[in-house]
Amino acid sequence: MTKVKFALAGLGRIGKIHLENLLQMEHVEVVAVMDPMEECREYARKWNIPHITGTFKELLTVDTFDAVVICSPTDTHANYVEMAAKAGVHVFCEKPLDLSMKRVVEVLKVVEGANIELMLGFNRRFDKEFKKVHELVKEGAVGLPHLVKITSRDPGAPPISYIEKSGGLFLDMTIHDFDMARYVVGKEIVEVYAKGAVLIDPSIGEAGDIDTAVVTLTYTDGTMAIIDNSREAAYGYDQRIEVFGSKGMVQANNNFMDSHRLYTDKGIQASLPLHFFLERYAMAYKTEMLEFVSSLKNGTVVPVDGKDGLLSLKIGLAAIKSLQEKRPVQIEEISI
Amino acid sequence: MTKVKFALAGLGRIGKIHLENLLQMEHVEVVAVMDPMEECREYARKWNIPHITGTFKELLTVDTFDAVVICSPTDTHANYVEMAAKAGVHVFCEKPLDLSMKRVVEVLKVVEGANIELMLGFNRRFDKEFKKVHELVKEGAVGLPHLVKITSRDPGAPPISYIEKSGGLFLDMTIHDFDMARYVVGKEIVEVYAKGAVLIDPSIGEAGDIDTAVVTLTYTDGTMAIIDNSREAAYGYDQRIEVFGSKGMVQANNNFMDSHRLYTDKGIQASLPLHFFLERYAMAYKTEMLEFVSSLKNGTVVPVDGKDGLLSLKIGLAAIKSLQEKRPVQIEEISI
Amino acid sequence: MTKVKFALAGLGRIGKIHLENLLQMEHVEVVAVMDPMEECREYARKWNIPHITGTFKELLTVDTFDAVVICSPTDTHANYVEMAAKAGVHVFCEKPLDLSMKRVVEVLKVVEGANIELMLGFNRRFDKEFKKVHELVKEGAVGLPHLVKITSRDPGAPPISYIEKSGGLFLDMTIHDFDMARYVVGKEIVEVYAKGAVLIDPSIGEAGDIDTAVVTLTYTDGTMAIIDNSREAAYGYDQRIEVFGSKGMVQANNNFMDSHRLYTDKGIQASLPLHFFLERYAMAYKTEMLEFVSSLKNGTVVPVDGKDGLLSLKIGLAAIKSLQEKRPVQIEEISI
Amino acid sequence: MTKVKFALAGLGRIGKIHLENLLQMEHVEVVAVMDPMEECREYARKWNIPHITGTFKELLTVDTFDAVVICSPTDTHANYVEMAAKAGVHVFCEKPLDLSMKRVVEVLKVVEGANIELMLGFNRRFDKEFKKVHELVKEGAVGLPHLVKITSRDPGAPPISYIEKSGGLFLDMTIHDFDMARYVVGKEIVEVYAKGAVLIDPSIGEAGDIDTAVVTLTYTDGTMAIIDNSREAAYGYDQRIEVFGSKGMVQANNNFMDSHRLYTDKGIQASLPLHFFLERYAMAYKTEMLEFVSSLKNGTVVPVDGKDGLLSLKIGLAAIKSLQEKRPVQIEEISI
Repeated sequence: MTKVKFALAGLGRIGKIHLENLLQMEHVEVVAVMDPMEECREYARKWNIPHITGTFKELLTVDTFDAVVICSPTDTHANYVEMAAKAGVHVFCEKPLDLSMKRVVEVLKVVEGANIELMLGFNRRFDKEFKKVHELVKEGAVGLPHLVKITSRDPGAPPISYIEKSGGLFLDMTIHDFDMARYVVGKEIVEVYAKGAVLIDPSIGEAGDIDTAVVTLTYTDGTMAIIDNSREAAYGYDQRIEVFGSKGMVQANNNFMDSHRLYTDKGIQASLPLHFFLERYAMAYKTEMLEFVSSLKNGTVVPVDGKDGLLSLKIGLAAIKSLQEKRPVQIEEISI
Repeated sequence: MTKVKFALAGLGRIGKIHLENLLQMEHVEVVAVMDPMEECREYARKWNIPHITGTFKELLTVDTFDAVVICSPTDTHANYVEMAAKAGVHVFCEKPLDLSMKRVVEVLKVVEGANIELMLGFNRRFDKEFKKVHELVKEGAVGLPHLVKITSRDPGAPPISYIEKSGGLFLDMTIHDFDMARYVVGKEIVEVYAKGAVLIDPSIGEAGDIDTAVVTLTYTDGTMAIIDNSREAAYGYDQRIEVFGSKGMVQANNNFMDSHRLYTDKGIQASLPLHFFLERYAMAYKTEMLEFVSSLKNGTVVPVDGKDGLLSLKIGLAAIKSLQEKRPVQIEEISI
Repeated sequence: MTKVKFALAGLGRIGKIHLENLLQMEHVEVVAVMDPMEECREYARKWNIPHITGTFKELLTVDTFDAVVICSPTDTHANYVEMAAKAGVHVFCEKPLDLSMKRVVEVLKVVEGANIELMLGFNRRFDKEFKKVHELVKEGAVGLPHLVKITSRDPGAPPISYIEKSGGLFLDMTIHDFDMARYVVGKEIVEVYAKGAVLIDPSIGEAGDIDTAVVTLTYTDGTMAIIDNSREAAYGYDQRIEVFGSKGMVQANNNFMDSHRLYTDKGIQASLPLHFFLERYAMAYKTEMLEFVSSLKNGTVVPVDGKDGLLSLKIGLAAIKSLQEKRPVQIEEISI
Repeated sequence: MTKVKFALAGLGRIGKIHLENLLQMEHVEVVAVMDPMEECREYARKWNIPHITGTFKELLTVDTFDAVVICSPTDTHANYVEMAAKAGVHVFCEKPLDLSMKRVVEVLKVVEGANIELMLGFNRRFDKEFKKVHELVKEGAVGLPHLVKITSRDPGAPPISYIEKSGGLFLDMTIHDFDMARYVVGKEIVEVYAKGAVLIDPSIGEAGDIDTAVVTLTYTDGTMAIIDNSREAAYGYDQRIEVFGSKGMVQANNNFMDSHRLYTDKGIQASLPLHFFLERYAMAYKTEMLEFVSSLKNGTVVPVDGKDGLLSLKIGLAAIKSLQEKRPVQIEEISI
C-alpha cells in the first residue's frame, strides 16, 4: 500500500506532537518540515526527515506531498492554507483559521475552488470522553437533548502578550467549547449571551480581556447550553461536559493522574486531574491525525472542516458583542 | 427544663413531617394543631395532641404556646403570619410568605413590630451537603469564590393546577436555588439574566410557564452564578452544587439510594439518586426545626428570616422580567 | 387494628435505640421496660412507659405482652430467652445467645418447645447496602457466586475488659461477617482457615486475643469467602462487601459523612465513612425491628433465627480452633 | 550522546510492544532482532532494523550491542539468558526465567559470574497505580502496613494447551501478585496458604489446574496479604490493590475505558475497566523499558532483578504445595 506523503509547517509545542504522531503511523511518510527557527529545525533533524526548510514557500517546492499540517502562528494560517490549496495539497490546520471572519470566508472560497480537504484541529472532538458523550446522545440514550453544560477551565492564564493577539478568551479558549456545544448534540446555535469578569489578574483586564466567563447559548430548537470558563483553576485543567435530555443525562469527567484513594483520620485524598492539555488530549491528538489520514486514504470528507471553524468564530464574535452590549446577540447579527 | 410549646397549622405532606419531627424532640411539646380537613385532623388524633382545631383563628385561642409552624397553602401564609405575630407567637413558615412583594413587605413590618422571630423554611440550607459546601467556602477552602453552579431538577412536573397558582417555575422552584446562591457564598445578587423554554409539556407553556431554565446571576462583586432547572429529570431528583474560587473548587453531589456497583459484560450499573425531595431532605427538615427550636430556647436570631424570603422573591421577580424582556435585569429595578 | 405489645430488657446503648424505634411505630405499644440500673430506668420515665422494672423476672409479671426485646449483657441472654419462651412471649435478642454452643443448643430446644419466634439481632442483614447485594445475588445478577469478600474494620478497639469476656475477635466482631458470608449468597460454610496477629495493641495479645485477622471460608460447593478484620481503622468504620460470580461482580461501599469533593492544588479531598456503627446502621436497626414486628403481626417466620446464631457461633469456634492449630478446620469438627 | 544498542529476541505480542517502545526512544538504537517465524521477521522489516535473524545464536553474532530483550517462549528464557550473559550482554527477560527453581538458581549464578544486569519483566511495578500505592506506603502515608489485598482477575482463561505448560495458575498468573505483594510494602513472605477451585471450566481441572484461588500470605513481621484470582471475570480485566496500615488505607482501582455516567430511569451506567492487559499496562511496558535503559546508561542496578524472579517462584511453589497438602506452607520448606 502506498503511503500518504506529508509535510508539516511549524515545530512549536503542537507541531512536535503532530510530527511524532505522524512518524509512528504505518501508512504515512513525512517528507518535509518547515520552521523559521533554527532550533526547531535542529529538533527535526534527529528524525531523518528528507527536507527541512525555513519558509512555507520553500516547503511547497522541495518535494511533492499529499497533505500539509499547519501548526505555525495563528496569523500565518490563512496565507498558508491558501498557498497550500492553490498547490492542490490537502490541509490540516490548527484553529483558528483567522480572527477575521472576512478573511476566513475568503480562505474557504479558495479551499472550495481548489477542491482540497481542509481539516481544522478541534482536538477535543477526538477525546474518548467527549466522543462517548456525542455517541450516546446521537443514539438517543438521553432522548431529546434539552441542556448542555460545558466546564472548561485552564490551569493558568497565558502571558498578556498572547492574550493581546489571540482575540481574547472567547476566541482563543471558549472557541473550543463553542465547537463542542455544536458537536455534542449536532445542533446549531442561534443566540449568545455572555457575562464575564476580571477576577484573576487585573492586567488581563487592562489588556481589554476577561478571565472568567459564563456563556448561555440557544440552539435553533430553543434548547440551551451553558459554558463556564476560567483562565486559572488552582487544581489544574478542568474539562467536563453534561448533556441533559428528555430521557436522562450523560456526563463525562476529567481524566485523573491516577485512581488512588488515601484514607486517613484527616479524610480521603485523591489525585488531581491531568494538569495540562497536552497530557489530557495526548490520545485525542493522535486520533484526530489518524482520522485525517484515514479521510485522505479513503477519499472521504474530513470530520471537522473550515465551515466548523467559521461557525465557531461567529459564535465567538457574537459572545464578544454580547459582552460589550450587555444583551443577548443573535448569530445572524454577525456578518462580514 | 421547661419545654417549648408548639402549635402547627396545616397537616399536608410537609405539615406531617414537621409534626412528627417535633413530637420526637425532647424539649418540645405540641399542644395544638389545625387543619380544615377532617382526614388530616384524624391523622393528628393518633398522636394524642391536646387540641385539634379546624381554623387558624381557633388555634390561636385553644391554648397558649410559644411558636407556631405554618404549613398551610401558600395563599394563607401572609394572613396567618400576621395573626400569629399580633398574638405574640414566634413563627416558622414554609416558603414563600407571599407571591406579592408588596404583601411580603407589609407582613415583615407586622413581624418587626411584634418583635417575634419569623423563620422561613428554606430547608436546603440545612442539608448536610449544602451545609458542608457553605462551611468550606466560609473558611476559605476555595479562596475567593468566582463562580457558583447550581443544578436543580425535579423528578416530575407538578399538576398544571399547581403551576397556575404557584407563581411559575422561578417562584415555586428556582426560588430555592436563588436562596442557595445567596447562602452558599454569603453574597448578594444584583443582576439576573434568565432563559427558559417549554421542552417537557406544552400544557405548561399554555399555562404561561416554562419547564426548563438557565439563569445567570451576578453578585455585587461581579462574580457569577449559574442555575439550571428542569421540571422533569427522567432519573429523579437532581440537586448538586459547585463553587469555584481562586484557590480551588468544592462540589456536592446527589444522595443515592445505595452505593452498589454491579459489573457485568454490559457495563457497570449503579443506583439512582434519592427520587423525591422528602427522602433527600428528610434529615434537613429535622435539622431546620431543631435549629428553630434552638433559637427560641437560646433567644438567638433564626438562621433564615423574612428578609431572606423577600430577597429571593425579588430575584425571582427579576428572573420573570428578564425572561419576558429578553435582557439582563437589575435587582434594583424590582420594587413594590 | 390492635397494637403489638412489647417489653424491653436492658437500656444500654442498643436498648435505647430499639426503644426509641419501637416508640415511633404505629402498630406497637411498649408496655414495660427493665434495667437493673436506676439511671437507665430514669431515662425510660420520660417516655411515659407504663411499667418500669429492675429485674427480668418482674418484667414478665407486671403486664402481658406479645414480645420482649433483650438487650441486656450477653451472659444474661440465654436465661432471659428461656424465661420468656417459657412465658410464651416472642423474643428479639441481641447476638450472641451465648458463647457456649452447648448452652445455645439448650436454649434453642426450649424455644422450639415453646413454639415462639426468636429473632437474633444480626443488624447488618437489614442495612440497605448489604440487602441490595443480597438481592442482586439472589436474582442472579452475578451468575453463580464464586467468591465473597468482606471487609470489616472497627474505628477503635474495645476496652480489654470487654475483650476478656466477649469471646474474642472471632466471636464478638467477625461473627457478624460469618453471618453475612452465609446470608449474602445463601450458602453454608464447611471449612474455616484463620490467620491472625496482634498489630495494634500488645495488651490485646496479653489478653489472649488478636486484633487483626484474615479468614478464608469454604462453602459447601467449594466456592470461597475472605474476611479481613481490624480492631482499629484510623479512618473510621469500614464495612464493605464484594461478590464475584460467573456473570459479574457486585460491590457495596461504606456510607460517607457527605459527598463533597474539594479540589485544590494539593489534591482532592473527601469526607470519611460514617465513623460509628450506630450511625452507619441507624436505619438497619429500624428496619430489623420493623421486620420483627411485621413477622409477629403476619404470623410469618422471623428473617434471622436462633439457628442462624448457632451456625455463626460454630464458624467462630472453628476459626478459633484454626488459629490455635494453624490449619484449616472443618465445621463438622465443632460439636457440643 | 551515544545511543544504547539493543537486540530483541521473540516478536510475539509482547516482543512487538517492546520493539515499538524501544524504536521511539531517543537514546536507543535497535540493531538486531530474532524470531524463528518468517511472518514475525516480516513484521520487523518495516522498521528498517539492520539485522533480522532466525536464531538466538545468530543474533549474538550479527552485531555488537549492549543489551538484549528476551520475549521468546518461556522454555527458552534460561538458555538465552545464559548465552547472553556469557556474551557479556545485559538482559531484559520476560518472566519467568524458568519454572524449575534449580534451573533459575543455575542461571542466576551465570549472570552473577558474568557481571551483567538482568532485569525481569514484572511490568505491574511500573504501572502508575501500583507505583503510587508503593510510594505512599513507602513514605509512611498509611503508617505500618498491616494488611495487603490484591485482586487480580483475567478477562478469560487461556487455552488448555497454555495451562499445561505454564506451571498453572500460581506460576503463570498469581506470580505477578506474589511479586506485587513483596514490592508494594517492601517486605518478604514467610508463609503461604492457598485455597483453589475449578469453577469456570472443568477442562482446566482435568488439566490439573484450578481457575479460582484465594491465597493468604504472611510476611516476616506477622502482617498479612490476601490475593484473590479468577481466570475469567465477565466484566474484563480486574487489577486492584489495597494496603491497610496503622494510620490509614490506600487503594488503587482499575483503569476504565472512559469516565462517562449515563443516568436514565433504569439507573446509572458506566464503562467497564480496560479489558486487556496490553491496554491496561501499555504505559507500564513503556516505563519499565525506559527504566531498564536508564539503568544501563547510568550504570545503576535494575529495579527488578533475577532474585525477585526467584523469590516469586518460591512463593508460587509454596502455594502449589499448600494447595496439594491443604495446609499453610513455610517458604523455607521450598528448596532446590
